[in-house]
Amino acid sequence: MKINKKRAQTIVLKNKPKIIGSYSIVGPKEGQGNFSEYFDYVMKNDHFGENTFEKAERKMIETAITGVIENAKLLPRDIDAMVAGDLLNQIISSSYAARAFEFPFLGVYGACSTMAESMAVAAVLVDGGFCENVVCCTGSHFSTAERQYRFPLELGNQRPPTSQWTITGAGSCVLSLQGDGPKVTSVTFGKVVDWGVNDVNNMGAAMAPAARDTLLAHFKNSNTTPDDYDLIVTGDLGKLGSEILIDLMEDEGIKLGVSYCDCGQMYFKHNQNTFCGGSGAGCCATIFNSYIIKKLREGLYKKILFLPTGALLSTTTSQQGDTIPGVCHAIVVEA
Amino acid sequence: MKINKKRAQTIVLKNKPKIIGSYSIVGPKEGQGNFSEYFDYVMKNDHFGENTFEKAERKMIETAITGVIENAKLLPRDIDAMVAGDLLNQIISSSYAARAFEFPFLGVYGACSTMAESMAVAAVLVDGGFCENVVCCTGSHFSTAERQYRFPLELGNQRPPTSQWTITGAGSCVLSLQGDGPKVTSVTFGKVVDWGVNDVNNMGAAMAPAARDTLLAHFKNSNTTPDDYDLIVTGDLGKLGSEILIDLMEDEGIKLGVSYCDCGQMYFKHNQNTFCGGSGAGCCATIFNSYIIKKLREGLYKKILFLPTGALLSTTTSQQGDTIPGVCHAIVVEA
Repeated sequence: MKINKKRAQTIVLKNKPKIIGSYSIVGPKEGQGNFSEYFDYVMKNDHFGENTFEKAERKMIETAITGVIENAKLLPRDIDAMVAGDLLNQIISSSYAARAFEFPFLGVYGACSTMAESMAVAAVLVDGGFCENVVCCTGSHFSTAERQYRFPLELGNQRPPTSQWTITGAGSCVLSLQGDGPKVTSVTFGKVVDWGVNDVNNMGAAMAPAARDTLLAHFKNSNTTPDDYDLIVTGDLGKLGSEILIDLMEDEGIKLGVSYCDCGQMYFKHNQNTFCGGSGAGCCATIFNSYIIKKLREGLYKKILFLPTGALLSTTTSQQGDTIPGVCHAIVVEA
Repeated sequence: MKINKKRAQTIVLKNKPKIIGSYSIVGPKEGQGNFSEYFDYVMKNDHFGENTFEKAERKMIETAITGVIENAKLLPRDIDAMVAGDLLNQIISSSYAARAFEFPFLGVYGACSTMAESMAVAAVLVDGGFCENVVCCTGSHFSTAERQYRFPLELGNQRPPTSQWTITGAGSCVLSLQGDGPKVTSVTFGKVVDWGVNDVNNMGAAMAPAARDTLLAHFKNSNTTPDDYDLIVTGDLGKLGSEILIDLMEDEGIKLGVSYCDCGQMYFKHNQNTFCGGSGAGCCATIFNSYIIKKLREGLYKKILFLPTGALLSTTTSQQGDTIPGVCHAIVVEA
């Protein structure tokens, strides 16, 4: 078995695992955004019938897993493993959701890059013949994230103009070698990159250097340019972060061009007052598993580069004066 | 490519990734325990030259990664990825440690089962030919865990007799197809199991049902019995939890026998006052990557079954009245 050392950061998947099912569930505000018609389920309110926001987040993840298994026309017994994670301490939304299912659970954490990490691990499990059908899932909830990372909503803190709005929503997909669907053809694992940003209300600036690092590695290792993709889509850099990424790439002589966009930047309508746009693990997870998958299936996109980014901070690191490292994993999906 | 559906929970690794390096670093109390002579590095104090315990934990993980690369006689540029996680919110010890290295980072979370999860993911990456050398690492710190999960040490709370002592320590290994070392021959991914225990000072009771579930699946799928292993070793069930597991298995007609032991139960000497023994992600990580690996290399053990267990709670779930789910992944290592 030979491995090209220089290219190990980018893994080419020989068997091209297929995305045979996808599902998205979002909150009411998200359901009024730019992608309203593509989501599978829009909740009537953020509580989703539960008495805490944390339990609502867990129920969203459970719903996304049940929904995606049905969408893939499978039964729970057909699933070999689920790879999932979320933003809450000890990824409780995912692990408690996993109690409801009779298949193994691999918990992953990559902050808002978790959708990419779960897909990367699942793709490797499927491509290597270790598993047949693997569920990937992540999500986030505005009210749990504000409470945990910033302040409880009851305090009514003002939001600075660089802030983003954590998406209330969960997205999921099933990877498999059987069945039909867009194919995952390669994965570029990201390094942890820290350029010294320490403003917890400016996640886009903290994560853009990680997106730059993974993009540069991906283009080099796969010998491709932005022109090779119909869509290059980052996770939740937001308005400011995606502009920073465009600048950083131009400094390297690479024009991302019109095919580049960011899920966070696109998520909401202008009058929804989210400042720099959407964020959170559920941000790119819900757009990827609704709009993007549907457009790949319809043939609008032939080959896309999906780059969820994550800011790897906690309140402890901020309180102890640390800066904010970022990570970004890249997934190539072809129709 | 054919997958035996009934056996997908247990993955047989055809290329048998080797553990070509291992490293362990522990705190002073751990350095006075039963395995004192096997650890690579014993810290003089729990601060490890840092001004917070959280930064000390991070530095232990950095040290474990640097140390294991050296132990494997590799250079950092030979490493294709690191798979790591820890108990702190947003796995900050691992992700901040990853900033110091120029290879990709995959964050995983399985509470105290994290060593098994990182080895399982790494084994799949190496066995499938996706990566050449992958670092696995986890750790924990008594003082950060007490502060985050229970109370800050300054409060001087009394410890109940079912409590365990979170290990201050980190363990790491490198998996590769090249080089020499004990082989990882199969992996059984665990399901999340919750039997309704809600006592946050009795982790052993909460995790034992998950160990039972994975053990039963492993024995069935691999067609083995306890007699096929020189050592069956759980992670940190502790004195009470390991007795519960022995009882639960006897109820299923399986006698674990003399080859069964638990890292948490064995860790400390009787006079070290740790009640039910050691716990934490660093517990089995430091014993596996010191004593167990050395005894496999020396030929004392020919085939072992390594079963780290994790309790997937957070303070939020306890405060909201939830019970404590557990997870356990099994790794078979042969000399």
